[in-house]
Amino acid sequence: MEGVDYLADERKKAQFDLDALKIVWAGSRHTFEISDRISKLVASDPAFRKDDRTMLPRKELFKNTLRKATYAWQRIIELRLSEEEAAKLRFYVDEPAFTDLHWGMFVPAIKGQGTDEQQQKWLPLAYKMQIIGCYAQTELGHGSNVQGLETTATFDPKTDEFIIHSPTLTSSKWWPGGLGKVSTHGVVYARLITDGKDHGVHGFIVQLRNLEDHTPLPGITLGDIGTKFGNGAYNTMDNGVLRFDNVRIPRDQMLMRVSQVTREGKYKQSNVPRQLVYGTMVYVRQSIVADASCALSRAVCIATRYSAVRRQFGSHNGGPETQVIDYKTQQSRLFPLLASAYAFRFVGEWLKWLYTDVTQRLQANDFSTLPEVHACTAGLKSLTTSVTADGIEECRKLCGGHGYLCSSGLPELFAVYVPACTYEGDNIVLLLQVARFLMKTASQLGTGKQPVGTIAYMGRIEHLMQCRSDVQNAEDWLKPSVVLEVFEARAARMSVACAQNLSKFTNPEEGFAELSADLVEAAVAHCQLIVVSKFFEKLQQDIPGKGVKKQLEVLCGIYYLFILHKYQGDFIATSCISPKQASLANDQLRALYSQVRPNAIALVDAFNYTDHFLGSILGRYDGNVYPKLYDAAWKDPPK
Amino acid sequence: MEGVDYLADERKKAQFDLDALKIVWAGSRHTFEISDRISKLVASDPAFRKDDRTMLPRKELFKNTLRKATYAWQRIIELRLSEEEAAKLRFYVDEPAFTDLHWGMFVPAIKGQGTDEQQQKWLPLAYKMQIIGCYAQTELGHGSNVQGLETTATFDPKTDEFIIHSPTLTSSKWWPGGLGKVSTHGVVYARLITDGKDHGVHGFIVQLRNLEDHTPLPGITLGDIGTKFGNGAYNTMDNGVLRFDNVRIPRDQMLMRVSQVTREGKYKQSNVPRQLVYGTMVYVRQSIVADASCALSRAVCIATRYSAVRRQFGSHNGGPETQVIDYKTQQSRLFPLLASAYAFRFVGEWLKWLYTDVTQRLQANDFSTLPEVHACTAGLKSLTTSVTADGIEECRKLCGGHGYLCSSGLPELFAVYVPACTYEGDNIVLLLQVARFLMKTASQLGTGKQPVGTIAYMGRIEHLMQCRSDVQNAEDWLKPSVVLEVFEARAARMSVACAQNLSKFTNPEEGFAELSADLVEAAVAHCQLIVVSKFFEKLQQDIPGKGVKKQLEVLCGIYYLFILHKYQGDFIATSCISPKQASLANDQLRALYSQVRPNAIALVDAFNYTDHFLGSILGRYDGNVYPKLYDAAWKDPPK
Repeated sequence: MEGVDYLADERKKAQFDLDALKIVWAGSRHTFEISDRISKLVASDPAFRKDDRTMLPRKELFKNTLRKATYAWQRIIELRLSEEEAAKLRFYVDEPAFTDLHWGMFVPAIKGQGTDEQQQKWLPLAYKMQIIGCYAQTELGHGSNVQGLETTATFDPKTDEFIIHSPTLTSSKWWPGGLGKVSTHGVVYARLITDGKDHGVHGFIVQLRNLEDHTPLPGITLGDIGTKFGNGAYNTMDNGVLRFDNVRIPRDQMLMRVSQVTREGKYKQSNVPRQLVYGTMVYVRQSIVADASCALSRAVCIATRYSAVRRQFGSHNGGPETQVIDYKTQQSRLFPLLASAYAFRFVGEWLKWLYTDVTQRLQANDFSTLPEVHACTAGLKSLTTSVTADGIEECRKLCGGHGYLCSSGLPELFAVYVPACTYEGDNIVLLLQVARFLMKTASQLGTGKQPVGTIAYMGRIEHLMQCRSDVQNAEDWLKPSVVLEVFEARAARMSVACAQNLSKFTNPEEGFAELSADLVEAAVAHCQLIVVSKFFEKLQQDIPGKGVKKQLEVLCGIYYLFILHKYQGDFIATSCISPKQASLANDQLRALYSQVRPNAIALVDAFNYTDHFLGSILGRYDGNVYPKLYDAAWKDPPK
Repeated sequence: MEGVDYLADERKKAQFDLDALKIVWAGSRHTFEISDRISKLVASDPAFRKDDRTMLPRKELFKNTLRKATYAWQRIIELRLSEEEAAKLRFYVDEPAFTDLHWGMFVPAIKGQGTDEQQQKWLPLAYKMQIIGCYAQTELGHGSNVQGLETTATFDPKTDEFIIHSPTLTSSKWWPGGLGKVSTHGVVYARLITDGKDHGVHGFIVQLRNLEDHTPLPGITLGDIGTKFGNGAYNTMDNGVLRFDNVRIPRDQMLMRVSQVTREGKYKQSNVPRQLVYGTMVYVRQSIVADASCALSRAVCIATRYSAVRRQFGSHNGGPETQVIDYKTQQSRLFPLLASAYAFRFVGEWLKWLYTDVTQRLQANDFSTLPEVHACTAGLKSLTTSVTADGIEECRKLCGGHGYLCSSGLPELFAVYVPACTYEGDNIVLLLQVARFLMKTASQLGTGKQPVGTIAYMGRIEHLMQCRSDVQNAEDWLKPSVVLEVFEARAARMSVACAQNLSKFTNPEEGFAELSADLVEAAVAHCQLIVVSKFFEKLQQDIPGKGVKKQLEVLCGIYYLFILHKYQGDFIATSCISPKQASLANDQLRALYSQVRPNAIALVDAFNYTDHFLGSILGRYDGNVYPKLYDAAWKDPPK
């Protein structure tokens, strides 16, 4: 029946103040209010419907995206939305589009790498969308290794121009979003060559299409690289291919904030420190971590609600079957993901602080924290995106067969999310960077250089190498100091073991390559420690609202005890804990599952997602799943 | 360049007789020859092209499937293919279609559950495809719990008919493949009611559509349930919804081999043992395990070839970058999956033998091995499909960004494969069944009842509870007896620990529910032991061909050492091995990766897959990846 809340009984079980938790999740009352208002605005506007997206042929799908992006832009202007509100609107429209690259990469690249004059010339055009830009870095044969890009930008002093050229097939630009069909301009990365000398990869503003009729400019070949994973998903994006046949651009279209080429063709560095680019990197990575908590929480919200609706087995005397959320096997897969969504939310919040901190330091020419910040953000990007991608798929499986229907929303959520494991640094490559930092830190121990920030624990290495947990009963696992010491000892011992094994190699690079799988494991241990410690720090803050802090403590416990169980091999093999203590941790974990159970529905209601944003019949707020699934079957066009 | 083999150098590195391994993989020379001939026949026929499948709108996609299925049927008749050859042809056409259910479920259901008269009436019609059938079991609200189905079949003695009815919305049939658009008939499962008494779920042959104009018969509502996960993939299948409004069928359309309803409405059991259904179950599960090795090997073949083509980082003095297959991080993710593909192939082969064995026993009224066979096949279905689904996605990630393109073949392979984790028994539900069997076995220890078959090791429980591995150096981990003992001890100790914890509960069912997550882990340990032991058994056979046995030994080592490393927490916590021994195992594992590296390309060539079947530009036999990727970009329609 319409209007009935089939999950009302579940909601009554909650033991905390939901409104208060909504604000904790949002980060502040201000953010909550904007999110709430804008998400409802989008949800109530039929022009933003997205339930047909997985059924549309790609051409229709792309036209639809163009229409929506244009309409969104129009609404932003009509409603005079602030920059923050406009960003939220694009977020809740929830559709990958060329505008993501225009606003998220093209504009920031000019802001970050352009001179004042370049910014004055190009930014107004971009802000008014009189030009649309993309970010053309990745090539057919070159992804992770940016320094290996092949496109060339050769300075011609005769005409004061750069000649942009694609010398090989593998140098074709490949993947940039917005490039395939829409962009008029791009920030193109190419090897700068002056006077026969290769100065490495630099950025150039290049016009790609005619502003009159949208055809490619002479010497430029442009196309869309084709269908990608999933229904709807990133097929709304025109990821493109681009080749240059000796295309000339004026010298002043090289982005010259950090380095310049003079009229005479001389290559110069400005006095702007190169390290400034790290600020952008931290910004991008903190937003990726925030996206991870968002994507994971969506999947968890769908799976949790449907697990309360769905019943299977366990009928007594003809009564209803058991709700699947009451099965411990379901809880042991679902609740750690719920806890992870919260954990990632809080570590993402901390990363926002870290961004401000690092920006202030860079402005004061203080580069001392950069290596630690680089390692920590690389590691958290890798950890949170991997767990989220796997977690969405796990949530899909937790919905049984119906999770395989597009109307569950989960296939599209997965397909649209997984590229996060690869873009902005492949997750394994990033973990190896973390490992390099860990090995460097380990090698400097005892030299008087004190590790800072998230690696500060390595300063207590002597204690951490010999401490043993004194946990004697299951409840001892609820003490933060006990847990932190165990996580620190595990991470430190894994790092030290790697460093010791590395020292046996005469060639350190060979050793690093040979032991890289172990090094990745040590890096993961370090990153998990960061997330756990930031969750504890959050819990030390003042958290208002009846019962809210208690619920977050339970989720924090589930987060670290689940890791402790899943990675018990690390903890036991390094003698941080005994098998008996691991078993007690597992007992405590089960007890926490029982505590979270009555609050589960309210804990996902706290995300405050509209049914529009969730895009899932299984995850409907009112739990009215089966009639709506049945109705949806008659809407698919091919009948 | 066309015709050039860019992987020729890789192929020259192989240290074994490839043709001999191809026959080992196929199972026999006979099977190899049929597979080779039929796969090339399909690949060379343009009517069977599938490279456009991920780009077609669903309606076109479905029409295409109809056309291909009809054409395949025509070719089978024209070429007078044997049943074995026809099955291979459908396999290599490689597209989910209504015919899968007709041949794979409808016909076997009538054969297995129909009386001789019913078989004589219906099978000839089905064999000539004059009727097309589906298997209508799952309902909107009922999947795993078959006994909870709601559709009713009420006997009406006045007219000698059953009245088939859908009493609730959740009783709507939902998911059956072939139902949505094509089937004329279905084997429909419904609760049999005679004289007001519910006799549980039985099968009925029901005509669904008019044979003249294909419209639904009166009282029948039919539809397609809509778009499913992925591009192409299962969207070629018309999974359907079906409701009955008091539809009458003659009494003789109940499948009456095992139980009957008489003209008077009396319910009777025949003297055919109900256990016969287990034969079918073993058959279905062995084919699911065989499919797992096939799907995983396809993904591994693509990822291995592309890992040899793709280069990233590590250029020295302007030379080429390093092939990504040379990175230990790549090897440590890819080679265990390669080893798993072989492991699952051999355990699948053994399951074929088990099927013959159990069939012979059933015919001789020997039901003694059934519980063990049931547990073992349930566990292997769960283990192999879970590893395969995750493995395909891991292979996709191992291909970097390009794995996300549909032209890599991996997105479709994943989307088409994952339902195997849910259908024919949800993987977690199946593991709980294994756990029940393990607990029963544990409770009977010492009662004189000797465990047999794959659980025989529990008969040596006293030894297994106190043995400790005497591994002292890395090479000791190559001794099968050492490895088997460690895997047996781990599985036995995990079972016994669960049994002991269960005994603390006064209500055993409550205990089982509370400890179910631990029980699942014990079941996984048992299943992994089965796979390892069957790999060892295979290696004890005569394996001809230079170097072939050696390669299989290396793969077997990678298979068990990878598990030993990944689950080291189990092995160490149960004191089966020491942390030092775990570390030695890891050293040996790395050494084996180096041994497999030069053979990697040949080891995937041994699968003998055509480029048509692989359906992947990244996995092309000739390694000519980038030019073909570039060409493919211009073929996608939406430009």
